[in-house]
Amino acid sequence: MTLPTSTRQWVLSRHPTGLPILDGPEATFSLQTVDLPPVGDGQLLVRTRYLSNDPAQRGWIGYVKAERMYMPPVKIGAHMSGVGIAEVVESKAAGYEKGKLVMGLAIGWREYAVVDAKDLSLIPEVEGIKPTQYLGALGFTGMTAWYGLKEIAEAKPEHVLVVSGAAGATGSMVVQIAKKLIGCKKVIGIAGGDSKCAWVKSIGADECLNYKSPTFRKDLKAATPGYVDVYFDNVGGEILDMMLPRMQQGGVVAVCGAIAAYNSTEGLHLKNWFEVISMRLQLKGFILPDFLAAGKAKETVMELATAAKQGKLAIGDENETVVDTKFEDVPKTWLKLFEGGNTGKLVTKL
Amino acid sequence: MTLPTSTRQWVLSRHPTGLPILDGPEATFSLQTVDLPPVGDGQLLVRTRYLSNDPAQRGWIGYVKAERMYMPPVKIGAHMSGVGIAEVVESKAAGYEKGKLVMGLAIGWREYAVVDAKDLSLIPEVEGIKPTQYLGALGFTGMTAWYGLKEIAEAKPEHVLVVSGAAGATGSMVVQIAKKLIGCKKVIGIAGGDSKCAWVKSIGADECLNYKSPTFRKDLKAATPGYVDVYFDNVGGEILDMMLPRMQQGGVVAVCGAIAAYNSTEGLHLKNWFEVISMRLQLKGFILPDFLAAGKAKETVMELATAAKQGKLAIGDENETVVDTKFEDVPKTWLKLFEGGNTGKLVTKL
Repeated sequence: MTLPTSTRQWVLSRHPTGLPILDGPEATFSLQTVDLPPVGDGQLLVRTRYLSNDPAQRGWIGYVKAERMYMPPVKIGAHMSGVGIAEVVESKAAGYEKGKLVMGLAIGWREYAVVDAKDLSLIPEVEGIKPTQYLGALGFTGMTAWYGLKEIAEAKPEHVLVVSGAAGATGSMVVQIAKKLIGCKKVIGIAGGDSKCAWVKSIGADECLNYKSPTFRKDLKAATPGYVDVYFDNVGGEILDMMLPRMQQGGVVAVCGAIAAYNSTEGLHLKNWFEVISMRLQLKGFILPDFLAAGKAKETVMELATAAKQGKLAIGDENETVVDTKFEDVPKTWLKLFEGGNTGKLVTKL
Repeated sequence: MTLPTSTRQWVLSRHPTGLPILDGPEATFSLQTVDLPPVGDGQLLVRTRYLSNDPAQRGWIGYVKAERMYMPPVKIGAHMSGVGIAEVVESKAAGYEKGKLVMGLAIGWREYAVVDAKDLSLIPEVEGIKPTQYLGALGFTGMTAWYGLKEIAEAKPEHVLVVSGAAGATGSMVVQIAKKLIGCKKVIGIAGGDSKCAWVKSIGADECLNYKSPTFRKDLKAATPGYVDVYFDNVGGEILDMMLPRMQQGGVVAVCGAIAAYNSTEGLHLKNWFEVISMRLQLKGFILPDFLAAGKAKETVMELATAAKQGKLAIGDENETVVDTKFEDVPKTWLKLFEGGNTGKLVTKL
């Protein structure tokens, strides 16, 4: 096989203000072909096989105050950032032989890339665990759920816990870790649709409420008669507002995501803000990179993998939605995140 | 002197939805005359001399879900609750002689009252400290500032601190305790008006910003080039939203009050909510009664009083606004709180 000398890549054309736009003169991204540089010492030429789709990516392209970002924002004209899994095609780095699978944020929305090996990690070859699990359950989303529950919310067996976006990549791991590993007294998921809710219950939630139901507000009240100790918030928006009056005195809101706000310019409207004072609530924002920087990631992945092998976490086909995608449709598949169509981790397969 | 057998009192007529209404068929309060019960053993007949005016009182009359209140809400037809200072007129309780001054929440908006002595505390007679200081600087507002800074925000000398409502009863104590007792690197007040700001600086703030100024947003940015470690929030509303992008990574918002929301049905609109996640902010609601229940109040008042005697806290005429008020005008004086006219503690003198 001849090695490629160029690659297609998706670059950021303009910062979106609302939902990113796929086509036309206002398109957020554009498809380019660029030459590949030669592979230097310590570098790899890789071919992208899978891309992780994450709501956080919306934050990387919409915000321009770089000093306030937890990672450098994507610049206009640069390729779109994203965690991916790629196969080594040519290697000038020891330990990264041709054919090995590697993963990392350095891959991005590119068909091929020349990358420093130190910016990638090898996918462990463990029987019964698919590589794509390292993008979700055993990767960033699993760890986000883990640290959010253990370190931020300090969830305990005696707690009643509610998690929104419960059918999503992070939320579905929150449900499982809270119920099966921590053993929370009651775990209530919130998801958009009855079939998603059925799935959330199948992975361990005691109850799941469909926020699209006209009776949702009443259902939420009925499901939380003794109030809620921990709310793991993946969505922000009106659901956060509805949760405030359902919180227990001294309750904690682990603020993980605000998918309701990513594509909106309207912000968050909290009618029930006063509950924060009267019920002494704590709202705590957090992001995964702080915990990764603390150097405990390997240990955490090991704990998750061990739990999975012991059958305490369901991680198989059921906790990911893998979408076969042509490279031309990478942004389109990513946008499915905001349509709420997936259960578990949304993975692009190239 | 003949002892009174009846008293005038202000009772709650209806729960207000917005700003309480003084007159007409929709009036929030009404003035009644009721008979006084006989003074039993362990009881006192007292005459109210001063009333404390507190934004929190708005919460006690607007909210009807008693189980979610940190104290029983005021019922329709009951006299309005409020902390007051009264003089003992007749005593059947040892240690509470006629002429002594007592204070407590049991007094409320009544000219005279028959009260259990155990529900009141004697005002300490200390040279150079006026009784009304025990309603403010050495009372609930001083303690609110103290615990909010020490226990909730954990303010430290290396911190840059912003406090809203800085000319108010709690805010002005926050300025003084943060600057003079904790020694925060920089203390920035926010207040409504240039003369209020001049006063806030006179009691110790490094800077004070007038939120009514057309350049406020720019001024806030200019005053916080290195961002803010602690925001002591007495007001909620748009100022809270503007503060979020000014917070330091890992910064704490001590959520003490939401005066902007008390008389509004619109709630809080946070355009910058995403900062809570990206900057890992902590928003922590708190109320004074939790700390009073912990039994440390006497010790705290002593620390504040000692600081005052040593000249480290300015507590004199300058940190209270005492309004001579006819009993018929008690609600009217209280409503001045929401007009923002006072500097320091707003006290009603009967």
